[in-house]
Amino acid sequence: MKKLINDVSNVLTESLDGFVAAHGDIVMLGEEHKFVRRKVLKPGKVALLSGGGSGHEPLHAGFVGHGMLDAACPGQVFTSPTPDQMIAAADAVDTGAGLLFIVKNYEGDVMNFDMAREMSGRDIETVITDDDVAVENSLYTTGRRGVAGTMVVEKVVGAAAERGADLKSLKALGDKVNRATRSMGVALTSCTVPAAGKPTFAIGENEMEMGVGIHGEPGRRRVALRTANEIAEEMVAAIAGDLNARGDALLFVNGFGATPAMELYLMYNAAKAQLAKHGINPARALVGNYVTSLDMAGCSITVTMLDEEIAQVWDAPVHTAALRWGL
Amino acid sequence: MKKLINDVSNVLTESLDGFVAAHGDIVMLGEEHKFVRRKVLKPGKVALLSGGGSGHEPLHAGFVGHGMLDAACPGQVFTSPTPDQMIAAADAVDTGAGLLFIVKNYEGDVMNFDMAREMSGRDIETVITDDDVAVENSLYTTGRRGVAGTMVVEKVVGAAAERGADLKSLKALGDKVNRATRSMGVALTSCTVPAAGKPTFAIGENEMEMGVGIHGEPGRRRVALRTANEIAEEMVAAIAGDLNARGDALLFVNGFGATPAMELYLMYNAAKAQLAKHGINPARALVGNYVTSLDMAGCSITVTMLDEEIAQVWDAPVHTAALRWGL
Repeated sequence: MKKLINDVSNVLTESLDGFVAAHGDIVMLGEEHKFVRRKVLKPGKVALLSGGGSGHEPLHAGFVGHGMLDAACPGQVFTSPTPDQMIAAADAVDTGAGLLFIVKNYEGDVMNFDMAREMSGRDIETVITDDDVAVENSLYTTGRRGVAGTMVVEKVVGAAAERGADLKSLKALGDKVNRATRSMGVALTSCTVPAAGKPTFAIGENEMEMGVGIHGEPGRRRVALRTANEIAEEMVAAIAGDLNARGDALLFVNGFGATPAMELYLMYNAAKAQLAKHGINPARALVGNYVTSLDMAGCSITVTMLDEEIAQVWDAPVHTAALRWGL
Repeated sequence: MKKLINDVSNVLTESLDGFVAAHGDIVMLGEEHKFVRRKVLKPGKVALLSGGGSGHEPLHAGFVGHGMLDAACPGQVFTSPTPDQMIAAADAVDTGAGLLFIVKNYEGDVMNFDMAREMSGRDIETVITDDDVAVENSLYTTGRRGVAGTMVVEKVVGAAAERGADLKSLKALGDKVNRATRSMGVALTSCTVPAAGKPTFAIGENEMEMGVGIHGEPGRRRVALRTANEIAEEMVAAIAGDLNARGDALLFVNGFGATPAMELYLMYNAAKAQLAKHGINPARALVGNYVTSLDMAGCSITVTMLDEEIAQVWDAPVHTAALRWGL
């Protein structure tokens, strides 16, 4: 295992220390590294809280700040954070207007966020994201997995919260964005969890995993390496077939951590051409490493259908470590 | 070779097509993919032009836009762009106030930009960056290599140009920032050039290349893998020893393309602690993949000493594909 680390047991805390040191104008750390929170809260605003296993950076801590999340709870690598982390975060960022939890659909996350909601006694709604069209049930889920579309939900709901929307409307908007969003991924290599010290899965020099999950979970099938156009064709067909919609969309090509920008933009080009066949026009674009799987090579394609409401909040100002515009 | 591509001969053009499709609000493409230029020029502003071999994305095209570059000329992967590319770009973006070329110190780049300057007949100054402290002369250079510090020069000079500084002042500022900047890199794996189809260099499972160049060129020496703290200690000592300065600085931890954000932030934490020993305080921070080497794992550390002038233009608004704040 080749990683820039000191000790496998301190990877998360040392990385979080670096993160808040680098972005101290935007975020601060909760005690015992339980959560990353927005430095300055906005009283009367519904607080947005997310979290999940680490290893997907910048998700979620990189999206804490104006126009997105108020707090993020990082679990150990690919491990759900605990309810006491979420309760501590909720206590720190609730200014009285209630809280919205944004949770990726994995059993551990859903269970722990639900326990935190019950135990905290606060006014909390939950949006569960399940945008991955690759598989119906999987290693860690009942139903579909929540993947890169989660970041789109966080951006859209975050902007609406900043504008003063109430908890009920935000819950409805979050569910609506999730329903308008589909993703699918492909892996060329495995990731390596630091504590495991070896690749999560074996994959041949000429193979790729179509429909891979963001923890390196199996996808639809193992196939021979194909061209970017062929990969985009299959992924976009799965996404567009499931969306069953035409019109303007956000096209988000997400790197898993070890794929160069050059390839991600080439995939954007390929995906855009495929979307045209399905009557979908990428009126908004996002390309980069936003929802990663440690050092996995590969990418995912996410499409969110845009109506006027979603497009407007997507464009609204955001100021976080990993996403910043208009401010 | 595992890459998301169609045909090795079209990687650059297809990637550029995707880039301008995704960022059509900021950039447009010159004919025959010769350059990427700012969509809207600012008449009377000195035009900033950079370029170099591709494979370092987002450098340079990702830094075209308000507050940074006016145009970038992409060569083939790790290959200098040609003078006719630079002349075409200069013709497209010169609004009469002259042009500043920002060139990384590699023999091919320096020679081609110099030929373009002579042939174009326009009013042109050149800033050559050579921030890499690892080696004095190297595979492709006489003198030090220009690496991640180039991006700092582009940001600082770009902001000053936006504010109306004239060509002579910009040349002086660029040289000053370059003198205030030092970098050093480490590679854990090789990169693979698409057209070559195999890794640029061989490296053992327990080895790393200290002082590696951004094309995978040899650095100071091949050593056994060490901890992040030990790596940061050696790199910061080399940088700080060469800078021979104390006070506020920008600390920029740059990923080479295949290293996860989690590790980059951990390295930021380690580098910050080392800088304190040398009396350098990271008053500004930047962490991410900005000056990459295709799919190489590893990172570089860049330190730019800040005075009031440099800090102010660093903080100034920027709106490019890869760097955006304040707008």
